[in-house]
Amino acid sequence: MFVILVYDTAAERNPKVLKTCRRYLHWTQRSVFQGELTPAQYRALTNALETVIDPTYDSIVTYTTRSPDYIETATIGVTLGGPGDIL
Amino acid sequence: MFVILVYDTAAERNPKVLKTCRRYLHWTQRSVFQGELTPAQYRALTNALETVIDPTYDSIVTYTTRSPDYIETATIGVTLGGPGDIL
Repeated sequence: MFVILVYDTAAERNPKVLKTCRRYLHWTQRSVFQGELTPAQYRALTNALETVIDPTYDSIVTYTTRSPDYIETATIGVTLGGPGDIL
Repeated sequence: MFVILVYDTAAERNPKVLKTCRRYLHWTQRSVFQGELTPAQYRALTNALETVIDPTYDSIVTYTTRSPDYIETATIGVTLGGPGDIL
């Protein structure tokens, strides 16, 4: 499955959220990750995120499709997410 | 078409980016909008965004599918994007 993940979490929890997302997905842009995961990896990621966020304050949204073929990506401006970009 | 838009733009341009996105899409979360657009509306949105961003610094990514039926959305933590949420 193809996963796009966006997070809106308190600054003090961002490092842990980033670290968790980076274990499973590629950084796309500030607050955005994407990548292909198996359903088991997706569950592991969401379970791990549940342990690092405050569910009464933070918000993480995932958009998933069966394959990246179902989704078109377009960029306006610079393309981030390359190996030289600083998280 | 169903559109998810994420932006990573310089703070001084964020108000214009927000205002432009709000004309076409619903605010989902910090830096994230989504909604259903016609292809003509999508082109109008991306054309308008090209005039407000600095294409050498800012980055906007759109993910589009033919219909929201191709994509599953899940939220961990709080659901933002309701009418009471402050942008």
